[in-house]
Amino acid sequence: MSTEDLSAGIAAVRLVDHHVHGALASTVDRGAFEELITESDRPIPDFMTQMDSQVGFAIRRHCAPLLGLPPHAAPADYFARRAELGEAEVNRLLLGASGVGTYLLDTGFRADAILDVAGMAAASGADAREIVRLESVLETVAARRPSAGEIIAAFREELAASTADAVGTKSIIAYRHGFAFDPERPGPAEVTRAAEAWLAQIDRGGVPRVDSPVLLRFLLWEGVDRGLPLQLHVGYGDPDVDLARCDPLLLTAWLKLVERSGTPVMLLHCYPFHRNAGYLAQVFPHVYFDVGLGINYTGVRSEAVIAESLELAPFAKTLFSSDAWGPAELHLLGAHLWRRGMGKVLGAWVDDGDWSAADALRVATMIGRENALRVYGIRS
Amino acid sequence: MSTEDLSAGIAAVRLVDHHVHGALASTVDRGAFEELITESDRPIPDFMTQMDSQVGFAIRRHCAPLLGLPPHAAPADYFARRAELGEAEVNRLLLGASGVGTYLLDTGFRADAILDVAGMAAASGADAREIVRLESVLETVAARRPSAGEIIAAFREELAASTADAVGTKSIIAYRHGFAFDPERPGPAEVTRAAEAWLAQIDRGGVPRVDSPVLLRFLLWEGVDRGLPLQLHVGYGDPDVDLARCDPLLLTAWLKLVERSGTPVMLLHCYPFHRNAGYLAQVFPHVYFDVGLGINYTGVRSEAVIAESLELAPFAKTLFSSDAWGPAELHLLGAHLWRRGMGKVLGAWVDDGDWSAADALRVATMIGRENALRVYGIRS
Amino acid sequence: MSTEDLSAGIAAVRLVDHHVHGALASTVDRGAFEELITESDRPIPDFMTQMDSQVGFAIRRHCAPLLGLPPHAAPADYFARRAELGEAEVNRLLLGASGVGTYLLDTGFRADAILDVAGMAAASGADAREIVRLESVLETVAARRPSAGEIIAAFREELAASTADAVGTKSIIAYRHGFAFDPERPGPAEVTRAAEAWLAQIDRGGVPRVDSPVLLRFLLWEGVDRGLPLQLHVGYGDPDVDLARCDPLLLTAWLKLVERSGTPVMLLHCYPFHRNAGYLAQVFPHVYFDVGLGINYTGVRSEAVIAESLELAPFAKTLFSSDAWGPAELHLLGAHLWRRGMGKVLGAWVDDGDWSAADALRVATMIGRENALRVYGIRS
Repeated sequence: MSTEDLSAGIAAVRLVDHHVHGALASTVDRGAFEELITESDRPIPDFMTQMDSQVGFAIRRHCAPLLGLPPHAAPADYFARRAELGEAEVNRLLLGASGVGTYLLDTGFRADAILDVAGMAAASGADAREIVRLESVLETVAARRPSAGEIIAAFREELAASTADAVGTKSIIAYRHGFAFDPERPGPAEVTRAAEAWLAQIDRGGVPRVDSPVLLRFLLWEGVDRGLPLQLHVGYGDPDVDLARCDPLLLTAWLKLVERSGTPVMLLHCYPFHRNAGYLAQVFPHVYFDVGLGINYTGVRSEAVIAESLELAPFAKTLFSSDAWGPAELHLLGAHLWRRGMGKVLGAWVDDGDWSAADALRVATMIGRENALRVYGIRS
Repeated sequence: MSTEDLSAGIAAVRLVDHHVHGALASTVDRGAFEELITESDRPIPDFMTQMDSQVGFAIRRHCAPLLGLPPHAAPADYFARRAELGEAEVNRLLLGASGVGTYLLDTGFRADAILDVAGMAAASGADAREIVRLESVLETVAARRPSAGEIIAAFREELAASTADAVGTKSIIAYRHGFAFDPERPGPAEVTRAAEAWLAQIDRGGVPRVDSPVLLRFLLWEGVDRGLPLQLHVGYGDPDVDLARCDPLLLTAWLKLVERSGTPVMLLHCYPFHRNAGYLAQVFPHVYFDVGLGINYTGVRSEAVIAESLELAPFAKTLFSSDAWGPAELHLLGAHLWRRGMGKVLGAWVDDGDWSAADALRVATMIGRENALRVYGIRS
Repeated sequence: MSTEDLSAGIAAVRLVDHHVHGALASTVDRGAFEELITESDRPIPDFMTQMDSQVGFAIRRHCAPLLGLPPHAAPADYFARRAELGEAEVNRLLLGASGVGTYLLDTGFRADAILDVAGMAAASGADAREIVRLESVLETVAARRPSAGEIIAAFREELAASTADAVGTKSIIAYRHGFAFDPERPGPAEVTRAAEAWLAQIDRGGVPRVDSPVLLRFLLWEGVDRGLPLQLHVGYGDPDVDLARCDPLLLTAWLKLVERSGTPVMLLHCYPFHRNAGYLAQVFPHVYFDVGLGINYTGVRSEAVIAESLELAPFAKTLFSSDAWGPAELHLLGAHLWRRGMGKVLGAWVDDGDWSAADALRVATMIGRENALRVYGIRS
């Protein structure tokens, strides 16, 4: 097999994007678009455009031709073309070109602005399955104003119902508290007391946003009990995260406690701590990771990030994701830059005789598709 | 535009070195020179020469030809030639070859041994502007033996006077305390109490070296109020720094408090935490960074450091600096290795079709010059 | 000198493997072998084979031909051939091909399963010298049931005896406690009290495994006093290590206290903190480091790890090691991947004119051999 054949083989892998959100439900203008292609939640400063970034350059390079423009088209031309096509057509073109066969959708963040599970399936022609955010389930329960004594049972009932067709759960404790938490499961009395304080706060008019470390830990352990693969946001994210507290190594003691349950733990994104994640994926049988999000936002440099993700972890423990939210450019780039990076990195190793081409394609297929099918127990 | 044209374009960028110190005022011998090309403040051990390091090899490769020697000239030949020319001529040749148009000079460290702002302008033919070190201003005030009750007002008066023509301020809290500090502004009573203790210590014969966390935080916030871009030493430096406490992520809470002021925060050096700095520069509108110092000291590997600095940060948020202090070799290498690294990294992306050559030159010009002109509000 | 000559020169360096363990004393089956080519101490999960990892691919690529198979031979063929040859012949072939002239053996971990110092010398035809693990010495002393009051003197006597022919000592405080420890030397009374508690625990049937921070610090300082190079496990290792506590930067305060003793401190492995180790090796005259272990386990990616190790540290401060334990494949790969990586990295610099070929070979010889001969005071 030549390296051209390898690239063609990687291009043909029908990907499972194991952590992603919906594409935009309606057209946005340039200002709104620019705010969607950064993890900053601040307005874009007047002195700059977010198109002058790796992700902006990657959009002009890889998405422009799919919308009928030359590579590196000027931003103004790109946005004019985008508006002309409309969001539905942009979604059709870009989702269609991504070669993703299955999306595992986290629907827990600003679900009103984006396509839901059925919408993504319809827009892309791919399968779409749901990942349930544990914090959202508890917040849904809290909005019904249960008593503190009822909350554990009510949560379990709601989780069972909301995950009946889901393939995984997700925790955003990284955002709400960070990883420096007591790894032990909190007892029922402790959970009830924490729920009491939180529900009282909601009664006084607070938004039902769970940030009590006790409740967040309760959710983690309930997720473990549920037995579906448990995704954790790790590392890079919006400024709501205190990145210094999101190094996955801080999870070590908790991972040891979870190990005996058999529940797979999926470390998402991980940049800039992806080497640490690779270490955990080597030494703990139940730990997996990906470098999604970082692939999109580092653009041409994603090749280096992908290469760094191929160090300590056995190849059965690494997955593909885009973590795209909103513009279908992010869905396309997640897939496209992953294929490009894998092709370049593995291709160079094959050219140098370090890897066989057959092994290279096999590993790309494991990471891009097969590992996810196995861990989530799905077909596609 | 070809990649040769790109390299020529990058070579022609008239750089703004936004964090640098003066060149040597007089000739040094080989022993002293070797101690100036490492961040160690210890004597060079007998068993080694500091010329056997990346920076030493880069000097022989890139500076030797500018002094009329072949590339890779032997150290003995290099030092003989250097002595023959004298420091003024070495400065003229190396500063002249750097293509730096503007130096922003931090004059706060061992100012007696190096050229001052006027001296650097004269030796280089470039513009030179001043960055004022906040700790030095307070130490100057303290040397006048004010009462503790007078110190806040006296500091403000001195800062206003010393920054009348300056373009920025700088904090070295990294060296004096690290970044694990209370992010809130200390109140006047707290500052006065800390000043009282410090002044009493000076009265008992202590050197006026400010290391009280309260006073260091006071200085940071006064720098914020002054409104000029506020530089912070981050990461790599001499052993006086506890590097484990100098990860810029530890500044997150403080950066959030500063954000509303509008004062730009310039994270200097950042190695080996430059990816973390790039993250902060993406998510916070007022945060900028560079990888100076690390470029000089990693020599041929600076290409990798530069590439890593081009990941998350929008291109409007990254700057060029050398952080050279003393030997003009460091001033030359800062500029030369930056141009070489940018040319190689961006050139490869252009060759592969990932970036357009026009974009590549535009980004190099932003990072090498335009971002600094904009942030510091200077012309050149 | 051409880059072919450079590669030939690097191939001819008679290496000193300054941190390594014995090769297997008897044949193992595939299941046992797979558990020996990961730092995980857990069973290999049913869904995967550890041969699908960088180290597994490197074995098939580089070791298979030495056993008479084609490169990339299938795992089943590889294990069949291995069984056919027997461990003694595998050892002879792989150790013989490594070009290692001297092994510095740490004999303190599961010594019964692997060759001892004499056995390694016999199997390889190389010199073999001993590194003494400080914790093992104390555990040996404790097994004799001394009183707490006798333990300091008994330890010193045992250390003197066990290091009579040794060339270095080693601490595994990284495994037993991590680096967040009080850097000061504990006083005799404190040590005696800690010994009392520990001996009482052993009396009650505990395994004599020292994990008291006081006793571990006592051992570190006794190692300093002994004056031989003191090796510390740093970074990557089995899940018994809490990697978040094994960043060598956490040793900074202790390194400053040790500096005046003159005892060299050898930071082992260091991945993924090897850039931090390089910083410490630049600023502290007595600090050295290597990237062993990480070279084996990152396989083809070891080239990147080696390149990253060649940044801040002066070339006199970096060493070569394999940290191989057990399968002679690991001994071979440590050496072979190091030569391959150095050849590629330095060769590219020579090709680009950044380094001279003569310097490149000189630096490879320093790191691969001469630095170790000098620091350990040995000949070979």
